[in-house]
Amino acid sequence: MNRYDSFLSAAARVMQESAIRRMGAVLGKGPEVISFAPGYPDPSTFPWEHFRATAADLLSGTDGSVLQYGPTRGFKPLLGAIVEILESRGITAATDELLVTTGSQQGLDLVARVLIDPGDVVLVELPSYVGALSAFNNVQASLVGVRQEADGIDLDHLDEVVGRLRAEGRRARILYVVPNFQNPTGLLIGTDKRTRLLEWAERNDFLIVEDDPYRDLYFDAVSEPDIRPIKADDRNGRVVYMSSFSKTLAPGFRVAWIVAPGPLAAKFELAKQAEDLCTGGFDQRMVYEAYRRGWLTRQIPMLRRHYQQKRDVMAAALDRELGDLISYAQPRGGFFLWATLPEHVSADTMLDAALRHGVVYVAGSAFFVDGSGHNTLRLCFSAPTPERIEEGVSRLAATIREAAEKPRAAAASPGRY
Amino acid sequence: MNRYDSFLSAAARVMQESAIRRMGAVLGKGPEVISFAPGYPDPSTFPWEHFRATAADLLSGTDGSVLQYGPTRGFKPLLGAIVEILESRGITAATDELLVTTGSQQGLDLVARVLIDPGDVVLVELPSYVGALSAFNNVQASLVGVRQEADGIDLDHLDEVVGRLRAEGRRARILYVVPNFQNPTGLLIGTDKRTRLLEWAERNDFLIVEDDPYRDLYFDAVSEPDIRPIKADDRNGRVVYMSSFSKTLAPGFRVAWIVAPGPLAAKFELAKQAEDLCTGGFDQRMVYEAYRRGWLTRQIPMLRRHYQQKRDVMAAALDRELGDLISYAQPRGGFFLWATLPEHVSADTMLDAALRHGVVYVAGSAFFVDGSGHNTLRLCFSAPTPERIEEGVSRLAATIREAAEKPRAAAASPGRY
Repeated sequence: MNRYDSFLSAAARVMQESAIRRMGAVLGKGPEVISFAPGYPDPSTFPWEHFRATAADLLSGTDGSVLQYGPTRGFKPLLGAIVEILESRGITAATDELLVTTGSQQGLDLVARVLIDPGDVVLVELPSYVGALSAFNNVQASLVGVRQEADGIDLDHLDEVVGRLRAEGRRARILYVVPNFQNPTGLLIGTDKRTRLLEWAERNDFLIVEDDPYRDLYFDAVSEPDIRPIKADDRNGRVVYMSSFSKTLAPGFRVAWIVAPGPLAAKFELAKQAEDLCTGGFDQRMVYEAYRRGWLTRQIPMLRRHYQQKRDVMAAALDRELGDLISYAQPRGGFFLWATLPEHVSADTMLDAALRHGVVYVAGSAFFVDGSGHNTLRLCFSAPTPERIEEGVSRLAATIREAAEKPRAAAASPGRY
Repeated sequence: MNRYDSFLSAAARVMQESAIRRMGAVLGKGPEVISFAPGYPDPSTFPWEHFRATAADLLSGTDGSVLQYGPTRGFKPLLGAIVEILESRGITAATDELLVTTGSQQGLDLVARVLIDPGDVVLVELPSYVGALSAFNNVQASLVGVRQEADGIDLDHLDEVVGRLRAEGRRARILYVVPNFQNPTGLLIGTDKRTRLLEWAERNDFLIVEDDPYRDLYFDAVSEPDIRPIKADDRNGRVVYMSSFSKTLAPGFRVAWIVAPGPLAAKFELAKQAEDLCTGGFDQRMVYEAYRRGWLTRQIPMLRRHYQQKRDVMAAALDRELGDLISYAQPRGGFFLWATLPEHVSADTMLDAALRHGVVYVAGSAFFVDGSGHNTLRLCFSAPTPERIEEGVSRLAATIREAAEKPRAAAASPGRY
């Protein structure tokens, strides 16, 4: 309580720090800590040469609009490029359904502001992406979790949850999912399940918010049909789709996009107008040139190899060092490996010890809206080098073995998001 | 009404397009229209050479963090630079009171989300900046206007308004002002009045939101004491201060900042975290380098001369062509000239004719929250060349003369924001 509390809006009073951003601060504490925490891409994969050459062209001064304010919807040629990218994913989108956003996080925030009133229920996966949870939390949504199976969200549980909410008379119209290499679990929603989700949305008058930042980063044994967006088969305007250039180019340019039925896209535009007027002009042009000059496309196979190799290194190290103590499903793409510890070991409580051992992760409970998941953790393999992944897993193994040997009474109650 | 209306939040239902952004779209219609509408800086003033050289350095690839996600508060060295800039304005700020924002518009939006509940009254000047009105409107604030005099906000009217609101039992805790070269009027709040505003805020338990993007762009006969921020004398933590690099460097890099008492800054950080995670890393470094290498500072005297010359050209043309029909106060800095037409001429209604004549402005009614101002307009002299300012004023004069000669019945009712 301080003297400014009386000035705060109801929304501000419930705002909470994201566990991932908190871990980001820990990461800043020095190179001696190996971080499996934030989902950062590896800067060594960024196309620096191309960026440098393009920046020199864009900043020649011949086109003043490069550094001017621009349209809220986005830089027109970039919108055209995104239409083509969407086409390659099976999605047909008109320009009036499209909006460039200042990172995907802004897309989530626009969804929250435009579609959610305080107290409205938003359905999310158990576990789910904390950035989305923050955005929904900041408009005072009531977050309700739906379990996941090996092939993603559990449709039976979904029906059960919706039935219960209806019986309680609560307004629930939005389902948020990350179908491809989910953050944090790395899971894929099965092909057949995607079709059934669309039918479910139509039957129950829901909108599906489909967040798809990792889809290009798939590994062996995954092919395009496995990652076909739900939006690609959305005949009835039930899906709001978002994706990003942060994982395939660089997050330092804050450029992502959102596709939605025209009337909703128009509202997202109005919300964005008051949020930041427009996404940075230079950033948008850098991304557009990456597309136009062809090096975005050429970048992607290299990224798949790069991140797959790191996944392999982490998985092998975990099997070797912790095979008897943890379980996990091999991620088939993306940045994350989701591990489950013995029931009596709390990843929250263990975090201090992990730091002492020089390794950090995100405790899984941060991703659960129902207070569960205390014995889970998210390990991000994208940023560290293979050598540091090996070393980090060794440190983690030492930490987990210590924790597992403690008497059970020492395990604390799970943290809540 | 469309089938998506039932999905909209209460906030989304009241979202409206900003008149300025609408004019921005008109501007896009071709070079033959001369635009006095959006408050765009002149790209010919941007330090392109410096930007190009700095971009080449930053994108060498030796520092991966340039294009990585960064802290929500902002790039640390840039925060340090802003502390020094604030010091030069008379403001002492600790790092925990400071936040980099994605343009000043995000600062306004953070203020809105953190400090305003639906129905809360926010006091704004008559007229006031539409970007702020949009941000407040989007959290369903109730906007109440306070008149201005030649030296800015009318303190007697302020007391009267607050007295009335108190009597009605309405919650009003926030006053929004642009003390230096206000958008849209170009007015300066008098030195003495600034002190009295602080006393007023303390007496009435208000926070003042001080928006200060234009202060560096003052012309002859203005000196530093005239533009001393209210925040500089804020001993009791009553002022939330924001400023920007968009007008002194380039708006294409979306970098601004907000200073507030620590507990509020912490909430702004949480709100920003869910809005866009962080401001673009490349943009922040470009701005930081502009400061560190000294060319931001060297840029400013040139900008003052540049915009003063344009102000002079516009004022002389208006005097010559329209001296008998319009009145205006000479702006002493900033980008805007605020003109009043004969009472029976509506700037809203006249807009179509202006477009036919090949000139565009922002109708003043957009800046008034009380439905007044139908015979006012905002003319932005910053972006067009002197030649086009001359030509634009000729076209405007033809438009106004036509409108003034029409029978009074033809003047339509004022538009509402």
